Amino acid sequence: MPDVTILLGSKNDISVGEKALDILRKFDVSAEIVVASAHRTPERVKEIVSKSDAKVFIAIAGLSAALPGAVAALTMRPVIGVPVSGKIHLDSILSIVQMPPGVPVAAVGLDRGDNAALLALEILALSDRRIHDKLIEYRNEMAKQVERDSEEVQH
Amino acid sequence: MPDVTILLGSKNDISVGEKALDILRKFDVSAEIVVASAHRTPERVKEIVSKSDAKVFIAIAGLSAALPGAVAALTMRPVIGVPVSGKIHLDSILSIVQMPPGVPVAAVGLDRGDNAALLALEILALSDRRIHDKLIEYRNEMAKQVERDSEEVQH
Amino acid sequence: MPDVTILLGSKNDISVGEKALDILRKFDVSAEIVVASAHRTPERVKEIVSKSDAKVFIAIAGLSAALPGAVAALTMRPVIGVPVSGKIHLDSILSIVQMPPGVPVAAVGLDRGDNAALLALEILALSDRRIHDKLIEYRNEMAKQVERDSEEVQH
Amino acid sequence: MPDVTILLGSKNDISVGEKALDILRKFDVSAEIVVASAHRTPERVKEIVSKSDAKVFIAIAGLSAALPGAVAALTMRPVIGVPVSGKIHLDSILSIVQMPPGVPVAAVGLDRGDNAALLALEILALSDRRIHDKLIEYRNEMAKQVERDSEEVQH
Amino acid sequence: MPDVTILLGSKNDISVGEKALDILRKFDVSAEIVVASAHRTPERVKEIVSKSDAKVFIAIAGLSAALPGAVAALTMRPVIGVPVSGKIHLDSILSIVQMPPGVPVAAVGLDRGDNAALLALEILALSDRRIHDKLIEYRNEMAKQVERDSEEVQH
Amino acid sequence: MPDVTILLGSKNDISVGEKALDILRKFDVSAEIVVASAHRTPERVKEIVSKSDAKVFIAIAGLSAALPGAVAALTMRPVIGVPVSGKIHLDSILSIVQMPPGVPVAAVGLDRGDNAALLALEILALSDRRIHDKLIEYRNEMAKQVERDSEEVQH
Amino acid sequence: MPDVTILLGSKNDISVGEKALDILRKFDVSAEIVVASAHRTPERVKEIVSKSDAKVFIAIAGLSAALPGAVAALTMRPVIGVPVSGKIHLDSILSIVQMPPGVPVAAVGLDRGDNAALLALEILALSDRRIHDKLIEYRNEMAKQVERDSEEVQH
Amino acid sequence: MPDVTILLGSKNDISVGEKALDILRKFDVSAEIVVASAHRTPERVKEIVSKSDAKVFIAIAGLSAALPGAVAALTMRPVIGVPVSGKIHLDSILSIVQMPPGVPVAAVGLDRGDNAALLALEILALSDRRIHDKLIEYRNEMAKQVERDSEEVQH
Repeated sequence: MPDVTILLGSKNDISVGEKALDILRKFDVSAEIVVASAHRTPERVKEIVSKSDAKVFIAIAGLSAALPGAVAALTMRPVIGVPVSGKIHLDSILSIVQMPPGVPVAAVGLDRGDNAALLALEILALSDRRIHDKLIEYRNEMAKQVERDSEEVQH
Repeated sequence: MPDVTILLGSKNDISVGEKALDILRKFDVSAEIVVASAHRTPERVKEIVSKSDAKVFIAIAGLSAALPGAVAALTMRPVIGVPVSGKIHLDSILSIVQMPPGVPVAAVGLDRGDNAALLALEILALSDRRIHDKLIEYRNEMAKQVERDSEEVQH
Repeated sequence: MPDVTILLGSKNDISVGEKALDILRKFDVSAEIVVASAHRTPERVKEIVSKSDAKVFIAIAGLSAALPGAVAALTMRPVIGVPVSGKIHLDSILSIVQMPPGVPVAAVGLDRGDNAALLALEILALSDRRIHDKLIEYRNEMAKQVERDSEEVQH
Repeated sequence: MPDVTILLGSKNDISVGEKALDILRKFDVSAEIVVASAHRTPERVKEIVSKSDAKVFIAIAGLSAALPGAVAALTMRPVIGVPVSGKIHLDSILSIVQMPPGVPVAAVGLDRGDNAALLALEILALSDRRIHDKLIEYRNEMAKQVERDSEEVQH
Repeated sequence: MPDVTILLGSKNDISVGEKALDILRKFDVSAEIVVASAHRTPERVKEIVSKSDAKVFIAIAGLSAALPGAVAALTMRPVIGVPVSGKIHLDSILSIVQMPPGVPVAAVGLDRGDNAALLALEILALSDRRIHDKLIEYRNEMAKQVERDSEEVQH
Repeated sequence: MPDVTILLGSKNDISVGEKALDILRKFDVSAEIVVASAHRTPERVKEIVSKSDAKVFIAIAGLSAALPGAVAALTMRPVIGVPVSGKIHLDSILSIVQMPPGVPVAAVGLDRGDNAALLALEILALSDRRIHDKLIEYRNEMAKQVERDSEEVQH
Repeated sequence: MPDVTILLGSKNDISVGEKALDILRKFDVSAEIVVASAHRTPERVKEIVSKSDAKVFIAIAGLSAALPGAVAALTMRPVIGVPVSGKIHLDSILSIVQMPPGVPVAAVGLDRGDNAALLALEILALSDRRIHDKLIEYRNEMAKQVERDSEEVQH
Repeated sequence: MPDVTILLGSKNDISVGEKALDILRKFDVSAEIVVASAHRTPERVKEIVSKSDAKVFIAIAGLSAALPGAVAALTMRPVIGVPVSGKIHLDSILSIVQMPPGVPVAAVGLDRGDNAALLALEILALSDRRIHDKLIEYRNEMAKQVERDSEEVQH
């Protein structure tokens, strides 16, 4: 059973979804990715969420991005919402961030599938030492990359 | 059976809902008003929509206003969405206007429960001469009011 | 006589208008498309609206998108407004959504000619069983497409 | 015959209209003020504009502020548009500023009935030496007031 | 002596300036075009404005578009401000529209050099019958073009 | 040792912090609340985060809300960011949502201390059955409240 | 001679100006405060700037806040711009931040007269050890205040 | 030892950093450029700032641009913040402009590395006559360029 279920509101959001998948794979965390629209397939969203044993959900959507909230309404698991960029940007960001009291969604930045995965990993790491250690490694590697970038920039 | 079902995302949206009810009552159109949250009570929304024989739905919500879209996903009837004002305003407007292709919502202006009702009446008037005639009367009365306002302003 | 009259504020809006036309044709609903500017040809707008027997109007415009409101001011038929994207986007959206009390416009999303047509069909379906059945079919097909997209994404 | 015709989209905009009237009166320029809504009374707007011999029109409106553009569509006289503040502000500003090519409106700032009147006076002053001289006086007085304000602030 | 002085805040704004020039030339109205930055060359702006006998000024600028206001501060002639598009758009629009009380600028739409020229012509037409007649012709031609566009769109 | 550490960027944010505290107390989850500014006391933030054994951090801040990101930079624990409303709103929302790749923050809505706590509880519930069961109860109670609100609204 | 000259675009901005004055006085730095509008009194602005021997200018303005840029155009001294809040906020912020290349303004936050003064002090401190030491003290005091606030919040 | 330390939040911001470097080099002012992320390498930022003897810091960052504020929190030297453009623009602008009371950042315009350098030079010029004289030269050259641009535009 996958630890993370990634839902895309549309096939077009796949590049954002793949950023999440890539990170999760690097951490050897099992994940599934599905397309399910809150507006075109509300029943399918319900079915996927109720069948899933995932510990964390990542929901990725653009425009009036109802998907993260729709998933959050169906589960007590943490739901991470990723707004997808479009012509306006603020539509998907505000739709995901401005959830009403009682049903939280954890919003990350525009198109930030990578950060959604890292946030999921931080949550999973609370009960998985191996992920925790890998996250520290990952951060260390990022810090080293910044130093390498700095040297490159200076020359 | 009511011709129009009005859904409020929260009890707090009642003043906007009453603007709609007042207009519908003036036109002797039967309407029911219920509170049902897309995020806190998704099952209840489904139940209300599937049980309703209404010809038009009016869904009123603020913040990440998912309710109009959630109703639209469950019915083939026209759904009118009313964004409710809050701290940001653009959150509810964009959440309701920016529906993805395939599942339309008819958005009216911020807090415009009255216009939602009038739009519902225009739709019902297509097959109800009496409503049509009353709408003409209503517009005529509005026009006369503008003239009266103009005289008042000039003195 | 066409059931739907589509007005474009400018010839440049034709691609959005064609999204609407395509959907209406798929549903065998008769529609006409005309260019008529609220600002450059107010008389022409009046003439078209008064001559038209359409049950629903779709008005498509960008920038200070006055056309949907201008049409709504001239008819008791439902008017669907489609904001066209430009450099700012919020100009056409807010111009169409923020109608004053008394004269409603049904706003759909930016460049969403398709949703304007589907909303028109939902309205026509209230008194036309055939359209209603086709809408259900259309939604079913959309849902199946989401499932196919999901399979594609997983491989 | 008044030199300036001021149109209010709604009686509620009267305080902005009075800012304009006050300035025009100070300059002994004749002006009339009327309420006329582009959406509720399109015919009335047309009648007022076609009957008026005003050299300049000032149109004041909030929300989807179509009135200035509607007046501009009906006359070759300069039309000054004043956006009225509301919940969003950007709706009336962008509706008035973002006119399409071919039909200009001269937009002034939010609620700036005073500046609308001063702009009208600058236009009238092109062929009226008396107004021109008074404008210079007015500016001089403003400059002196700034100096007086400065002294007040320093103590 | 030119009837209209066009100031560009930067050489980069030339395409917007040429839209204005083209219209003015079509109407046989004399115009000069200069580059003068409110921030880089405040003295030059002052010199140009004080030397100019123009009846109307058109000031075109992007970003923190201070030029139209700077010109308006130096003359009693009508000043038309044209915001130039950039990365944000709202910066130049709001800088030009939101003038303080006492010093009006007539703002037109983003990059609307054409409308700036037409507004200037409407002002000049108040005392020049020939321009007035040409403006009517221009509008008639626009209206005919809309009809031709409409026919093209229908085929 | 508290399970949740709540950091306020300023004493003024206490009302948002108390919304979070109230929820956590209802669930018998231990929490501490401290004031620590990323800009005025960066060392203090570091000290608090490094000393804390909390499983989840909640960081609450307005304006240029750097605090959630500053905490996230110092820990591998999940960090929930709460934007606090002010004059602009979008400043704190975007500062918290738009984190760069590699260091995620889980943003909730404007002033949504309550949702921050509920999200923290969802995370803690992954390894604490008791919290999980209480969350289900909490949601059920919310749903019942919606029904009671609905009845109230209908009378 | 004062080390800092504070210019207010309008008497109404005095409360923001006083925030700056209070800080400067605490640091025993001499400062003068004057009202001078870039739009109503361009000559006065020029005179004040050219006469001033101040090392740093602080210019405070709302709406289309041209004052900081106008001062920056006239001096090679650092100019700090403070946007004043109004109905839109983004107008004064963007007018001050978005200066064109070549003429910089140092923008601080909305109504942040205090931060303008502190920034001026940081600049003066580069050649004045006493101010430098006082700034360190000031920061230390702020940090202690945060600790006191934290204790207060916990009880 | 360099007089100016330029920090980039990411290697991707190098083009904005080079605009600053180019100006500083033209003025023979020594500068160093480093990459250091407030979120990925908070320790590195601290180390760079504490080791640096620079009189002015320039911090360049996009998205939730915490870097300028993080630097300002660590030094009493003036810190100039440059927001980098991205998909939203307002995120980096507001993150940098809207600093809380007590810790100022001097914000310049979007991608305005050049203006950041010029502002740094204006600060350094307060105690360096040579830089002051060169700044006057630079402004004069800019003014002449405007005149040349004007001639080019007229032909």
